[in-house]
Amino acid sequence: MTIKEQLAVRAARVEDFLVLCMRDRGIPERLLRSMEYSLLAGGKRLRPVLMLSWAGLLGSEGVTDRIMPFAASLECIHTYSLIHDDLPAMDDDDLRRGRPSNHKQFDEATAILAGDGLLTEAFGLMSAASIVNGLPADRVLRAVFVLAKAAGAGGMVGGQAVDMELTGCTDVPLDDLRTMHAMKTGALITAACECGAILAGAGDADVENAREFGRNIGVAFQIVDDVLDVVSDTETLGKPAGSDEAMGKSTYPSLMGLEKSKSLASDYVEIALTRLSGYYGAEQEFLWQLARYIVDRVY
Amino acid sequence: MTIKEQLAVRAARVEDFLVLCMRDRGIPERLLRSMEYSLLAGGKRLRPVLMLSWAGLLGSEGVTDRIMPFAASLECIHTYSLIHDDLPAMDDDDLRRGRPSNHKQFDEATAILAGDGLLTEAFGLMSAASIVNGLPADRVLRAVFVLAKAAGAGGMVGGQAVDMELTGCTDVPLDDLRTMHAMKTGALITAACECGAILAGAGDADVENAREFGRNIGVAFQIVDDVLDVVSDTETLGKPAGSDEAMGKSTYPSLMGLEKSKSLASDYVEIALTRLSGYYGAEQEFLWQLARYIVDRVY
Repeated sequence: MTIKEQLAVRAARVEDFLVLCMRDRGIPERLLRSMEYSLLAGGKRLRPVLMLSWAGLLGSEGVTDRIMPFAASLECIHTYSLIHDDLPAMDDDDLRRGRPSNHKQFDEATAILAGDGLLTEAFGLMSAASIVNGLPADRVLRAVFVLAKAAGAGGMVGGQAVDMELTGCTDVPLDDLRTMHAMKTGALITAACECGAILAGAGDADVENAREFGRNIGVAFQIVDDVLDVVSDTETLGKPAGSDEAMGKSTYPSLMGLEKSKSLASDYVEIALTRLSGYYGAEQEFLWQLARYIVDRVY
Repeated sequence: MTIKEQLAVRAARVEDFLVLCMRDRGIPERLLRSMEYSLLAGGKRLRPVLMLSWAGLLGSEGVTDRIMPFAASLECIHTYSLIHDDLPAMDDDDLRRGRPSNHKQFDEATAILAGDGLLTEAFGLMSAASIVNGLPADRVLRAVFVLAKAAGAGGMVGGQAVDMELTGCTDVPLDDLRTMHAMKTGALITAACECGAILAGAGDADVENAREFGRNIGVAFQIVDDVLDVVSDTETLGKPAGSDEAMGKSTYPSLMGLEKSKSLASDYVEIALTRLSGYYGAEQEFLWQLARYIVDRVY
């Protein structure tokens, strides 16, 4: 199987869980439709897949089944952030994954609440990994702590706030751009890997490898995203191509050019790969290929 | 001390924690100001105080200090819900606690993100009750599970969604109104009491007493809120009086009249008090008086 096919197989397993996870929770019908509209709109399920793979690499047999609710919670958090980012008061995007964005399909109030609901349910799912699936409570709680920090106001939410402040500023210093992205997209990808290791019961050195792998592919992923916004078309992206430039956002290509951006992404992937050098087996192989695939998308 | 003074003393203790809890977390400066603007805008701190008091009633010495981060997280969740409810796409309120609402003081994007940030940080604070303060992880995780359900799309968030749907409908059936309020405001008050008992390590019967006490004072609290919106003035409320009627919201007074509403609130408080009958001491006395105080505000 190609890495793309392997990714699809793993994403499908996450999908199977996501399809059911918001049901029978007493959620009002229209709100549930709005939450599922965005949660089940496809996507690579990169964050859950990363978590499951790191847990599989470092944990005992069956650990990936037991942490599935936790992995799914990452997709809930990612989805809520997309719904809120698309709102008129934020990036004002009408299109997401080739379909009307949530507030276009429903309405603004429902989109705000669907995001709030997904974020809150995410933490319920995390605790379910222990309460329903029997993972040790201290591991799960430590992962909740790490994830709340990554997704919160000093992480993902703060990154979006900084992004809004920087929008319209030309010549943003590269360091500020890097910090913003590290918060906005990097923190959750990093936490996905780190929490996979924590949930598997790994020791400190393994947890650090997972975290640093995540941090570096997170940067590469963002650079590639910026590059794709320039070189790809709207149909392939599922959202308007060239939207960064149209919104006056500084990006890696706008600050350092396309070729240098691509080469920088490759450098970050190489650093990430060093964190895999001490491991063996199918999960190591998968993570290795996945890291390469992130940057190969632009070639 | 009167119950009002006792409540103020306990609120001040929560306040002391809230003042510091968002600092040194790497939150961008303007976002932090926006979060603290609403979090530190006063308020009775009813939910944390209820949690601390139930934990004090049922737990061992020092338990209230250890669960303080968890208690504070309730105020973060309550505050985020107010910020989002006030947004133009929702209730469109310009005034909150006598000051401009968050999106008026800052801007809409910042208000959305401040709410998202407070909600996410809340779960970080909950896990800190174990990771920093050493409470048993299984207790804390069970409380996280209960709280996520109460605050989520089948609870508080769902209640707001139903409230939006019902707004403008006259003659909403009383049962629908009760269900909506049970989700929108009741669920978090109920969870505050229940989680106080859980965090104290109480047994099932005590946890049930805490939960049912919370459920009943929650209903009473909402009825009284509706009554105050009719009989009070804008200055006392800190928000526009008569706003329910102006927005075409069905309320207890609009469906059953003022006197019947007041008497119904008293009935719920009486039911709540039966749940305190087996306990003794200062915390029992405080909870008893607090329950009475809720309904006394309208006399």
